[in-house]
Amino acid sequence: MERLVVNSSLQSYTIYMEEKSRFKIPKLLKKEYSSILIITDTNVAKLYSNDIVSSFPHDKVYVVVVDAGEQTKSLDTFYYLHTKAIEYGLDRESLIIALGGGVIGDLAGFVAATFMRGIDYVQMPTTILAHDSSVGGKVAINHEKGKNLIGSFYPPILVLYDTDTLKTLPAREVRSGFAEIIKEAMLADSDLFDRLMSVSLEGLTLEALNLFIYSGLQIKIKLVEADEKETGNRKFLNLGHTLGHALEAKLGYGVLTHGEAVAIGLLFMIYVSERELGASLPTETLIKWFKKNGYINPLTLDMVDELVEIILHDKKTVNQKIQMILLRNLAGPIIQPLEAKKLKSYLQGFIVDGISKR
Amino acid sequence: MERLVVNSSLQSYTIYMEEKSRFKIPKLLKKEYSSILIITDTNVAKLYSNDIVSSFPHDKVYVVVVDAGEQTKSLDTFYYLHTKAIEYGLDRESLIIALGGGVIGDLAGFVAATFMRGIDYVQMPTTILAHDSSVGGKVAINHEKGKNLIGSFYPPILVLYDTDTLKTLPAREVRSGFAEIIKEAMLADSDLFDRLMSVSLEGLTLEALNLFIYSGLQIKIKLVEADEKETGNRKFLNLGHTLGHALEAKLGYGVLTHGEAVAIGLLFMIYVSERELGASLPTETLIKWFKKNGYINPLTLDMVDELVEIILHDKKTVNQKIQMILLRNLAGPIIQPLEAKKLKSYLQGFIVDGISKR
Ligand SMILES: NC(=O)c1ccc[n+]([C@@H]2O[C@H](COP(=O)([O-])OP(=O)(O)OC[C@H]3O[C@@H](n4cnc5c(N)ncnc54)[C@H](O)[C@@H]3O)[C@@H](O)[C@H]2O)c1
Ligand SMILES: NC(=O)c1ccc[n+]([C@@H]2O[C@H](COP(=O)([O-])OP(=O)(O)OC[C@H]3O[C@@H](n4cnc5c(N)ncnc54)[C@H](O)[C@@H]3O)[C@@H](O)[C@H]2O)c1
Ligand SMILES: [Zn+2]
Ligand SMILES: [Zn+2]
Repeated sequence: MERLVVNSSLQSYTIYMEEKSRFKIPKLLKKEYSSILIITDTNVAKLYSNDIVSSFPHDKVYVVVVDAGEQTKSLDTFYYLHTKAIEYGLDRESLIIALGGGVIGDLAGFVAATFMRGIDYVQMPTTILAHDSSVGGKVAINHEKGKNLIGSFYPPILVLYDTDTLKTLPAREVRSGFAEIIKEAMLADSDLFDRLMSVSLEGLTLEALNLFIYSGLQIKIKLVEADEKETGNRKFLNLGHTLGHALEAKLGYGVLTHGEAVAIGLLFMIYVSERELGASLPTETLIKWFKKNGYINPLTLDMVDELVEIILHDKKTVNQKIQMILLRNLAGPIIQPLEAKKLKSYLQGFIVDGISKR
Repeated sequence: MERLVVNSSLQSYTIYMEEKSRFKIPKLLKKEYSSILIITDTNVAKLYSNDIVSSFPHDKVYVVVVDAGEQTKSLDTFYYLHTKAIEYGLDRESLIIALGGGVIGDLAGFVAATFMRGIDYVQMPTTILAHDSSVGGKVAINHEKGKNLIGSFYPPILVLYDTDTLKTLPAREVRSGFAEIIKEAMLADSDLFDRLMSVSLEGLTLEALNLFIYSGLQIKIKLVEADEKETGNRKFLNLGHTLGHALEAKLGYGVLTHGEAVAIGLLFMIYVSERELGASLPTETLIKWFKKNGYINPLTLDMVDELVEIILHDKKTVNQKIQMILLRNLAGPIIQPLEAKKLKSYLQGFIVDGISKR
C-alpha cells in the first residue's frame, strides 16, 4: 500500500493508495463513529457502494445516491444531502464518506464542512481526476454564475484511493483525469511531462496509471502544504483553469468534462505565455498528444464576450484584473495579472489562429 | 474604548466596544479591501447603514438589505447574498460587514465563510443578544428541520460594538438579549447573577447596560477560548438552549424571540437540575424576575411530543442521547446525557407543575 501524508495546519491526513482497499475502510479509521453516511452518484453506486457498506460490521451505515454529473454540485443537492443527514440521525460524531469523482468529493466534502458546523469525512476518489480534487481540502458547490464559488477549506481525515475502481472508468473520464496530471507535470516536473507525452491512453496498464497518479499526487501535495489557503503558490494549480472553468460554465456543465475544458485551457495558457513572456514551450507535442488521444475543442469566436465576462467573476479575479497562471518555461509557473481587454484579444487570437484546432 | 481580545487557533481578533464607533471603522481595519459589502436588515438599514457607508472614503461600498427576523437565516437568503456578492464584483480581497443582530451576524458570517471559500468579515452587533452571537466564530443558517444546522466555525477579523445603537432597540429585544446575559451569569458568575436580579429592564441606563454586556462578553470569551470547536466546555453556552431552540423551531421563528425561548429553556433546565442532581438554585428569584420584566411563556402540554422530536435531531444529541447542560449549583454547569423518554416526562412535569407559569 502506498502511503502519502498531507500536512495541514487545520488537520494532517494520510492518503492510502491501494487496489481493493475499499473493502477495508473500518481498519483505517482511528475512532468509532456513531453513524456513517456514504454519499455517491448513480454510476458509482451501482459499482461500488455495496462493497463499502458490507465492509462495516455495524448497521448504522447509510447510502445516499445523487445524480451523476457536474449539475449535481448545486445548492439544491447540497440542501437535500443535509436533509438526508438529519433524517438518518447523523450527529457530530458521525462520518461522511465521499465515494466518487471530484463532483462527489467537492459536494460531500462541503456537506461535511457545514453539517452541524463540520463533521469528519473521508475522500474515496474513484476517478483519475479525483486524485487532484480529493487532496488539499478544497470543497465547494457551484453558483449559477460560476464554478466552485460557494465553498470552504475543509480537509478530510483520510483519503482512500482504491485504484482498482479506475478500471471501470469510461475513456472520456480517463482523458479528463490525464489533463490534470499533465497540468501538474507542466507546473513542476518536466520529466513527468515527457513520460506522459510518450504514452497513449488506450491500452495503458493499471500499473503505469498508478505511477502517473502517484507522481501527480506528490506535486499536488507539495503545493498544498506550502500554501494551504491559496494565498500564494497554490494558485499555480489553477494552470489552464482560467479558460477551463469559464468554458464549463458557458457550455453548460456536462458538455465538456472538467479535464477536457482544462486541456483547452492549457493550450490557451501556452498561447498567452508565448506572447506575454516569450516563453518557448512544447506546444506542438502537446497539441499532437491531445489530438491523438481524442480531446475535443468546441471553442468558437462568438463565445469570446461571454467567456471574458465569466472569467471576470471568477475567484481568480482581483481588483478586476485576471490573475492568470502562465509558464516562463516548463516547470516555471508565474502569476500574471491581465486586463480583461488583453485577455479578450488573446482569446480571439487563439481561436482565429486555430492553434487549438491543429 | 473598551478592548477585549479573543484568542483563536484559527485567527485572533479584537472586540472594540465604544459608543459612536460606527463612524470610524476604516481606521480599525488593518488592510485595504478591494470592495466592501455591508449586509444588514430592514430595521437596522434605516437607522445605521448610512453612517457606515459614509465613514468610508472610497466608493466600492455596497449595501444589501434583507428582511428582518429569524426567517431570513435561510438557504434562500444565503444564496441571494452570494448572488449579490458576485454581482457587485466582490473578490477574495473584499470584506463583508455584518451590521445587525444575531440573525445578520450568523447569516452574513456564513456567507463570508463560504464566499470563494472564505473572505474577511467584521461583526457589528446592534442588539444586546448579539454580544453573544458576534463572538466565538459560530456562523450558520437554519434548516427547516432545525436551527443552525448548516454552518461553520469562522471567526471575524474584528468585532465592533457601538453600544449607542442599542438605544433604538425595542423592549422585547432588550428582554431577549438579557436572557443570554443571565445564562452567562448562571454559568460562571453568581455575583453577576445577583446584580442582574436586582435591576429592572425598564429605565436601565446605557452605562449599566454596558457593564452587563461587558461582563457577559468576558464569560463568553473565556469559554470560547478554552474550547473553540465546542468539543468540551464551550457546550455550556447551550445552557437553556435544548428546549429554547426546539421551542423556536416548533412555534415558527418570530413568535418568540431567541432570548424569550432561552428564558423558558433556563427555567426548564433548573427544573431538571433540581430533580436530576438535587441542585438547589435561585428558582423563585428567577421566575419572579422574568415575570416582572414581561417574559412570556406559551408552552402547553400538546407541544411535548413534537418538541422532543425536534430535540432529538438537534446538534446537541449524540447517539440518540440528549446532551443537556444542567447546573449542580450556580456557576457549576455539567453536561448530562438524558434519554428521550426521561426528557419527555420532565417536560410534561414542567408544564403541569406550572413552574413556568407562576
Ligand atoms: N477540490 C479540488 O481541489 C478540485 C480539483 C480538481 C477538480 N475538482 C472538481 O472535480 C470535478 C470533476 O471531477 P470528476 O472529473 O471526477 O467528475 P465526476 O465526479 O463527475 O466523475 C466523472 C464521471 O465518472 C463517473 N465515475 C466516477 N467514478 C467511476 C468509476 N470508478 N467507474 C465508472 N464511472 C465512474 C461519474 O459517475 C461521472 O459520471 C469538478 O467539479 C471540478 O471542479 C475539484
Ligand atoms: N453565533 C452564535 O454564537 C449565536 C449565539 C446566540 C444567538 N445566535 C443567533 O442570534 C439570533 C438572534 O439574534 P438577535 O436576537 O439579535 O435577533 P435579530 O438579529 O433578529 O434582531 C432582533 C430584531 O431587532 C432589530 N434590531 C437589531 N438591531 C437594532 C437596533 N439597534 N435598533 C432597532 N432594532 C434593531 C432587528 O431588525 C430584528 O427585528 C438567532 O438566530 C440565534 O440563533 C447566535
Ligand atoms: Zn481542475
Ligand atoms: Zn442563544
